[in-house]
Amino acid sequence: MRHGLVIVNTGNGKGKSTAAFGTLLRAWGRGMRLCVIQFIKAETSNYGEIQAARKLGIEWHSRGDGFTWLSKDLDKTAARAREAWALAQEKIASNAYDIIVLDEMTYALKYGWIDVNEMIAWLREHKPPELHLIITGRDAPDALIEYADLVTEMREIKHPYARGIKAQPGIEF
Amino acid sequence: MRHGLVIVNTGNGKGKSTAAFGTLLRAWGRGMRLCVIQFIKAETSNYGEIQAARKLGIEWHSRGDGFTWLSKDLDKTAARAREAWALAQEKIASNAYDIIVLDEMTYALKYGWIDVNEMIAWLREHKPPELHLIITGRDAPDALIEYADLVTEMREIKHPYARGIKAQPGIEF
Repeated sequence: MRHGLVIVNTGNGKGKSTAAFGTLLRAWGRGMRLCVIQFIKAETSNYGEIQAARKLGIEWHSRGDGFTWLSKDLDKTAARAREAWALAQEKIASNAYDIIVLDEMTYALKYGWIDVNEMIAWLREHKPPELHLIITGRDAPDALIEYADLVTEMREIKHPYARGIKAQPGIEF
Repeated sequence: MRHGLVIVNTGNGKGKSTAAFGTLLRAWGRGMRLCVIQFIKAETSNYGEIQAARKLGIEWHSRGDGFTWLSKDLDKTAARAREAWALAQEKIASNAYDIIVLDEMTYALKYGWIDVNEMIAWLREHKPPELHLIITGRDAPDALIEYADLVTEMREIKHPYARGIKAQPGIEF
C-alpha cells in the first residue's frame, strides 16, 4: 500500500510552491489525480502555473484575495483562508485524489485564521492514508513540522531583487 | 528586455530538481521554449517528470548513467557528464531557448569532471543575456554561487526515510 506523505515546504527562500508544482508535473506524468488549493493567491490568469494547470486539466482553486502585508481588510483575507480550508477538508475527505497541494496555507496558521492543532486533529481523523498532502509557505508552525513526514526548508542564499532585478515571468510567476 | 537569471538550487534537502521542474510547468504554461539536460540520471521511462515532458513536448536529455556513490566506473560517469556539458554548451549558444535546466550538474563540478571556472568563463562569453539557466544539485561550488543571480539552499529538516518509509512514485520520482 502507498504511504501517503505529509510534506511541508517552508523557509524564506524561493521554491516552496514551485517544488510543489514540480511534484504536480511529475505526478501528472504518472496519471495521478491532483488538486491544488491556494490560500493566498487570487484567481487570475497571469500565473504560468494556472495557465499550465488549465491546459493539463489539473483541478486548481485559488481562494485568496491577493493578500499582501499591506492588505487593509485582514478580516476578509482571514475569512477567505477559512473558506479555503473548508474546501480543502471537503477535497481531502472525498478520497478522490492522490495528491492535494495546500499552497501558502502556513500564513493562515501563523496568523491564527486556522488553528493548527484543530487542523492536525482533523487530518489525523479524516486524511485518507494513501493521500499525499503538500503544504507550503513560510514559518510553518512547530506542531505542523512535528506532524509532517517530510519537511524541507528553502533558505535564501542570494536573491536578484537585492540588485534591482524585477520578478521574471515564467520564473517567479 | 528580459534579464536572464542564473538560478542555483542546492543543499541536502528535497526540492532542488523538483523546483526546477515546477518552473518548467509554469514556463510551459506561458509557452516558453524549454530544454532539460540531466547530468546524472539515465534515460528511462520510470520517471514521472520524463513521462510528463514527453506528453508536453518539453525537450529532455538524460545523459547520465544512473550514477550512484557506489558506481564502479567513475571514468565513464565523468565522460558522460562532460558529454552532457558539451550538449549544454550547444543548446545554450544556440539562443533557441528561454529556459535551460542543467539538472544535477553540481556533482560534475564537485568531482572536477568539469572545471567550474572554465564553465563560468564560457558562460560569461556565450550565454544569451535573456536566457534563464537553472542549475541543480548538492554542494554548489562557491564560484558558481558567486556567479549566480538567485541561489536557494534546500535544507532537510525531516525525512521519512529515517522512519523506514520508501520513495513514493509521483513524489520522489
